[in-house]
Amino acid sequence: MTIGKVTLLSAGPGDLDLLTIKAAKVLATADVLLLDDLVDKDIVTMAPKARVVHVGKRGGCKSTPQDFIQRLAKRYALQGQHVVRVKGGDALMFGRAGEEIACLRAAGIAVDIINGISAGFAAATSLGMSLTLRGSAQGVTFVTAHMQDGSGPNWPALAATETTLVIYMGMSRINEIVSGLLSSLPTDTPAAVVQGASTTAEHSLLTTLARLEQDVAQSQLASPAVILVGRAVAAAIRRDCSNIQLAA
Amino acid sequence: MTIGKVTLLSAGPGDLDLLTIKAAKVLATADVLLLDDLVDKDIVTMAPKARVVHVGKRGGCKSTPQDFIQRLAKRYALQGQHVVRVKGGDALMFGRAGEEIACLRAAGIAVDIINGISAGFAAATSLGMSLTLRGSAQGVTFVTAHMQDGSGPNWPALAATETTLVIYMGMSRINEIVSGLLSSLPTDTPAAVVQGASTTAEHSLLTTLARLEQDVAQSQLASPAVILVGRAVAAAIRRDCSNIQLAA
Repeated sequence: MTIGKVTLLSAGPGDLDLLTIKAAKVLATADVLLLDDLVDKDIVTMAPKARVVHVGKRGGCKSTPQDFIQRLAKRYALQGQHVVRVKGGDALMFGRAGEEIACLRAAGIAVDIINGISAGFAAATSLGMSLTLRGSAQGVTFVTAHMQDGSGPNWPALAATETTLVIYMGMSRINEIVSGLLSSLPTDTPAAVVQGASTTAEHSLLTTLARLEQDVAQSQLASPAVILVGRAVAAAIRRDCSNIQLAA
Repeated sequence: MTIGKVTLLSAGPGDLDLLTIKAAKVLATADVLLLDDLVDKDIVTMAPKARVVHVGKRGGCKSTPQDFIQRLAKRYALQGQHVVRVKGGDALMFGRAGEEIACLRAAGIAVDIINGISAGFAAATSLGMSLTLRGSAQGVTFVTAHMQDGSGPNWPALAATETTLVIYMGMSRINEIVSGLLSSLPTDTPAAVVQGASTTAEHSLLTTLARLEQDVAQSQLASPAVILVGRAVAAAIRRDCSNIQLAA
């Protein structure tokens, strides 16, 4: 029997029209879908041939740990199936793809990767802003607020880059993010939060670094959401002055 | 007459199958395409109704400056046309989208944005590596090596973030990049160069920071290419030991 393969397929930020044409083609021929919680369930209609296995890892719930997902992918692939592991956003951003790729390759299984739109890009689209700005934001940094050991990233070092910061999984750590960044950035640094970018649940907030924690607390915004900080965010604020709340 | 609109459409890294489904739908109905040099010319087959205007800005050639492109977009939109401004990669990354959006909105023209896959993501796919790695690369930073005033970014500050660095437009400045990064990073920090990610011209090189300049000089790699630096790149090196050239 021929060994199958695994495709790590990035499903993008939410709107299924933001999948790539390549992703749609691969879904159409998939034998097995291993589906994350954060992906729109309607994606199964794009994979009519596939057996669907839900392998989401909801916060705190250990029902489908990483090891089990990897064993499942391996087992189906070794049975000759084309397994499509569907991940939200871009699989190579914060999807622990490195571990899955290494595990599968060690078992002699070929792994294809299909990129997607990461939530931070969709958040910038939602705000109508560029992630970089000639002369003031030379680049953009994507980070998670949660590190493996429970600590946070080096916020002062990130602030010192003068890149636009796009922070994932930060909603429960805003206090820490703000105090870390304020050691290097001015209080009136533009900041934004975008929840559900590209979906019908899309909501956003424009503010400043100094008011970020307070404004989020007073809003209805919740995880998963992306936090954007930096001078490039000012373009979003100039566009929509209706909900800007400048620090006193 | 009704005013038209402008869509900033991201064409991704090269392979037209990496356009989103949304992008394909918009191209199918476009009246006018304003097309960058870096985009595969076959994209016009996806826009059968559209008048095509080539507005590429090749290095050094000032034949189609930014102001002219913006005036063109504005003129067609004010004539009631749906103008699709096609940019390589993701329009919100290094595409000067901020200026175009501001200019069009100031003229009362609606601007839609459609995200795409930026070259750095396709480069990571080409290398079979994740852009982040739990425990060693908490995030990823995308920067251009060329700043507006001719200077370079603050490489030591970028190195201090311990994020994976993905450097665009850096091939003519490798000396500067390497010396800037070596002030903070070890000589054996994994580094890679990917040219033409996702296209038939795709080629890559895996090396270390200390050997990057020498190895690129001895290779056939040329712009446009993406340079990746950081511990996450080690996964690409472990995968393919055939062309790894470790520093002595």
